[in-house]
Amino acid sequence: MNINKFVMPEVIFGHGSRDQVGESCLRLGAKKVLIVSDRGVMNEGWLENVIENCKKAGLLFATFYDITTNPKDFEVEKGKEQYIAHECDAVIGVGGGSAIDTAKAIAILVTNGGSIHDYEGVDKINEPLPPMVMIATTAGSGSEVSQFSVIVDSKNKKKMTIVSKSLVPDIAIVDPQTLTTKSPQLTASTGLDVLTHAIEAYVSIAATPLTDVQAKNAIQLVAEHLRPSVASKINMESKYHMAMASLQAGLAFSNAILGAVHAMSHAIGGRFPLLHGEVNAVLLPHVMEFNFLAVPKKFSTIAELCGESVQSLSNIEAGKKAIDYIKQLSLDIGAPQRLSEMGLTDEGISEMSQVALEDACMITNPRDIKIEDVIQLYRQAL
Amino acid sequence: MNINKFVMPEVIFGHGSRDQVGESCLRLGAKKVLIVSDRGVMNEGWLENVIENCKKAGLLFATFYDITTNPKDFEVEKGKEQYIAHECDAVIGVGGGSAIDTAKAIAILVTNGGSIHDYEGVDKINEPLPPMVMIATTAGSGSEVSQFSVIVDSKNKKKMTIVSKSLVPDIAIVDPQTLTTKSPQLTASTGLDVLTHAIEAYVSIAATPLTDVQAKNAIQLVAEHLRPSVASKINMESKYHMAMASLQAGLAFSNAILGAVHAMSHAIGGRFPLLHGEVNAVLLPHVMEFNFLAVPKKFSTIAELCGESVQSLSNIEAGKKAIDYIKQLSLDIGAPQRLSEMGLTDEGISEMSQVALEDACMITNPRDIKIEDVIQLYRQAL
Repeated sequence: MNINKFVMPEVIFGHGSRDQVGESCLRLGAKKVLIVSDRGVMNEGWLENVIENCKKAGLLFATFYDITTNPKDFEVEKGKEQYIAHECDAVIGVGGGSAIDTAKAIAILVTNGGSIHDYEGVDKINEPLPPMVMIATTAGSGSEVSQFSVIVDSKNKKKMTIVSKSLVPDIAIVDPQTLTTKSPQLTASTGLDVLTHAIEAYVSIAATPLTDVQAKNAIQLVAEHLRPSVASKINMESKYHMAMASLQAGLAFSNAILGAVHAMSHAIGGRFPLLHGEVNAVLLPHVMEFNFLAVPKKFSTIAELCGESVQSLSNIEAGKKAIDYIKQLSLDIGAPQRLSEMGLTDEGISEMSQVALEDACMITNPRDIKIEDVIQLYRQAL
Repeated sequence: MNINKFVMPEVIFGHGSRDQVGESCLRLGAKKVLIVSDRGVMNEGWLENVIENCKKAGLLFATFYDITTNPKDFEVEKGKEQYIAHECDAVIGVGGGSAIDTAKAIAILVTNGGSIHDYEGVDKINEPLPPMVMIATTAGSGSEVSQFSVIVDSKNKKKMTIVSKSLVPDIAIVDPQTLTTKSPQLTASTGLDVLTHAIEAYVSIAATPLTDVQAKNAIQLVAEHLRPSVASKINMESKYHMAMASLQAGLAFSNAILGAVHAMSHAIGGRFPLLHGEVNAVLLPHVMEFNFLAVPKKFSTIAELCGESVQSLSNIEAGKKAIDYIKQLSLDIGAPQRLSEMGLTDEGISEMSQVALEDACMITNPRDIKIEDVIQLYRQAL
């Protein structure tokens, strides 16, 4: 019964809610916004959509979409220069984790100065950030509501996790319609990322009753709606529920932090240009098997939330059903099953294990973990 | 599938969390705070506690606790004068709904000017409010997280409901330890107020998936922990869960609004110095019986959340169990069962019915309601 803290942005959720972006920026006092996005989002037309809406609201704007999957320190630096050159006074992020995390990192630099490396870790941001409005288009990262930004340190080839209440955006806009342009592959990997957020937050040693309600609801929604969402681009009901699952999982992990899956996935993402969600999807069942010992009762609840019948089963038996369920889900939606499918080999595993062990997300993993454990988990997932 | 909005303050929750009040004010840039409370809270020692903590943090302060149950417009006016005379720059509320609603109303006047009557209704506040930190000590009102303030119009003898996102405090502190000094009577009435918030928010026509998770969890917590909490002043587990229930019900109704119970209760509270929670407790089962027609499936879920076995029952049968459950709960904890026990008579019912019909909370009631219905409901509850 420790003291729990919970923060979240104002949320605007629903079909067509992206059309509130201009008005939202005005409400925060913005006059000229930097719109941060990526080429994928631009090609799907959502960036233009946002630009049109900002124009209609009478906002001036500049754009920056020169970013890659797993955004890099030097990309953040470029974005900052863009913000300064155009004398912007607010930031909009449009996209998945890459665009939104970059938008947050730019916001840090424009009022706090220095290099993005200075802010790695917890609570390193001192000056208030400019107004931030984030539009989530992937139902995956949860970054639109979280106090996290993850940026690659390109020299040291590792992901830096930046955690601060200041990184919670002012307004998060979640519009399920933006999910209709995602490929089945991206729907699957981002959906499994949502599940990973929800499960890691739920079993985190920093979980609280406030994060549990969000995490549990997100698990239930993913179990019910991820398969239909992968199956059809136009099944709006499933898009709606997956967007909600992503939002709730984001609220849960933002406040309960994550665990070994994310620590290990960050170490991979710092070196290889892989989809974060796919890497998580491969690691999740292995880490769950490792963590099972620490939280059997919670695993039993996860099985129940996934719709498994657990009556007359012990927590141990029921908990194992949760792991089986998630393996099957991942198979059903065609997610990769092994790291080797993505081109990883045994090379570099010991360095990555060291990096993973030092990741901020490892602190809240429910089972104590040593370097040998991390190495073994990577090997199991190869 | 409309567009849903959800706002909440930063929350600090847990035993001893009241000791973060000074630091919280400093974080918001406060130098001199007006601490708004009431005599009950002062006599229980919590006000002194807060003052000590503010002193320790190096804050200057003034106090204002000249308020009554169902706080009045002229009390708000006095508080405003106190704030200005002492050149304060932030507001702390310590107490239940009365203290916190007064603190919010003072905050409105000091930056927006005019009279508190000018702000009745939705979205009438234009200027930003000073920093607000609220400490909830009753596990009842939920005002520490809500966008509501309810103030009595003393001339017209009615409660004015003021609704605005600006009324969401910056930081809400919820410390279950402050519940240990409450009488069983106050524990019962505030606990039934929590249940009323949760149920009205859940069946509200403005309910969303984001408010539903909070409302449902709150109903479950009240069903499990209100009886033990009334039974023992020192049962800390029950205090903890009731404080959480209050917080979650507050988040639910702040964003989904309420219904006929609150509309009718406000009309009573504007005329008679009665405990808001007790009036709600009497009205709740009558309004539930009236509303049943509109949302039988939700009523069935309420029964399930209360721990009733609903397997093999129809929604209609299960929903009726919810109403029976709540009547029994109210009896078990010794809450008043009739308005006449509190001194009400048939006199004034038709005027009150008109006032109730015009209350902002009536708009979201799930069943259409006419003046004759309101009159009949009041009579049934007499």
